[in-house]
This record gives sequence, structure tokens and C-alpha cells, in this order.
Amino acid sequence: MGRGKARHTATPAAKTSLHLRIDFGGERSIGPGKVRLLELINETGSISAAGRALAMSYRQAWLLIDELNRMFREPVVIAQTGGGGGGGAVVTETGNDIVRLYRELERRAYGASTPEMRSLARLLAPALPTATKVH
Amino acid sequence: MGRGKARHTATPAAKTSLHLRIDFGGERSIGPGKVRLLELINETGSISAAGRALAMSYRQAWLLIDELNRMFREPVVIAQTGGGGGGGAVVTETGNDIVRLYRELERRAYGASTPEMRSLARLLAPALPTATKVH
Repeated sequence: MGRGKARHTATPAAKTSLHLRIDFGGERSIGPGKVRLLELINETGSISAAGRALAMSYRQAWLLIDELNRMFREPVVIAQTGGGGGGGAVVTETGNDIVRLYRELERRAYGASTPEMRSLARLLAPALPTATKVH
Repeated sequence: MGRGKARHTATPAAKTSLHLRIDFGGERSIGPGKVRLLELINETGSISAAGRALAMSYRQAWLLIDELNRMFREPVVIAQTGGGGGGGAVVTETGNDIVRLYRELERRAYGASTPEMRSLARLLAPALPTATKVH
């Protein structure tokens, strides 16, 4: 590989990120969306504010939390019922354990697979300025 | 933790799997769906047969391949145009490199994060027989 090619690849590799979903079977899974939602509930103390930060409706955010609360042995979020769903919300110890374990898992997985991520990034075409890309 | 609890967790941990999506920035990503599609094109020699195996229309499968072909420096699949899109398809060397690197990355990430996956599985509620679960 020539020096020019190697220099070219620094940019895509730098932007490369890994998104992990852990599937426990029986349609039970956690991934970056649910984990980020828990982190934002911790930061904001509110399901609706956390949902808004992720461009979710209160209902969407609540359905994800409800799913998590049923999935684990202990609830992950406890909502303090106020008037019209406006009450605060608290992430439980189990909820915080899940966030911590997921972020640690992500860190380890990322560290272990850096060589392959770099190799994949080297195969990329140069990025287009803006494009009509299919998701 | 008691012995009874530890015994309980063997089942969920055994079913646990990790799904990885690599995001290269600029809306360019690869994950289990695209990689499985490439593997199935290799096995079947056909985009439509590979798509069918993943419950995708020919159009859906083709859009994913087209996205991959634009994303990488070299095409990943070359379609042999026959009458009415019925021709065969061949995964290129770049396409096979992508599959190999992704599977290796997955294997390494899984290996590196087994302790956290087990810890997360231990927090799960016992699985319900069948349930009306939100995805």
C-alpha cells in the first residue's frame, strides 16, 4: 500500500463508530437507543425531556421504559406520577447497572475490533460532499 | 449471590447474541442485514433468492446492494443482467473482504465482552412463555 492511500484513510477511520445491540432471545434486547434514554433520564430527571432530546414522543419513550421494566428482574425507571404525566422519573440501581455494563461492553468490543474497523474503513470510497443516500 | 440464582441464569446467557453496526459517518454503515445478504448472494448466486431468504423484495435487496456498491471503493456485487432481473449475481473480492472482516470483528467483540453480557443476562427477569412484546 502506497503512502498516499494510507493518508487517505485517516479521515473515515476517525469517524468510525460501533453500535451494539444485545439480544437476549424472546424479543428482549437492549441497544444504544434504550441506553441513551436511561442516561438522559438520569440527566434530566424526566421521561418526556429525555424523549424530546432523542426526538421521541413521551409515548414512545414510555413504551421503551415499560419494555425495559418488564424485561429485567427489577424496574429500571420509577416514574413519580404527577398531574398529566408531568412528574419526575428516577433511574434505579438496576437501571444504572445496565447503563454501566452496556458502556463497558461497548468499550471492550470497540477496543478488541479496532484492526478490523480500520481495514473496513480503508475499503470505503472517498466520502461524497452530500448525497441522496438510502439509509 | 446464591447458587439457585446462578443456576437460573444459564438459560438467558446461552441465548444472548451481539449485533454490531459499524457506522463510517456520512450515513454510511454496515450491519448484520447487509452482511447476511452478501453471504446469501454467495450461497445462492442470486440477489432475488438472497432477498427472499431474508423476507425482502428484490427491490429492497437491490437497494442495499446498490448502497454498498456506492459506499466502497470497488463494487461488492456484480449483477449479471439477464431478462427481467433474473440473471445471477457474484460477490466480488471486496465484498468477500467485507464479510470476512465483519465476521472477524463480531467474533472479537463477542469474545471481549462476554463478562458484561453475562452480567446483563443475570439481571433479566425469567422469560415469559409467549408475550405481546413491543419491539
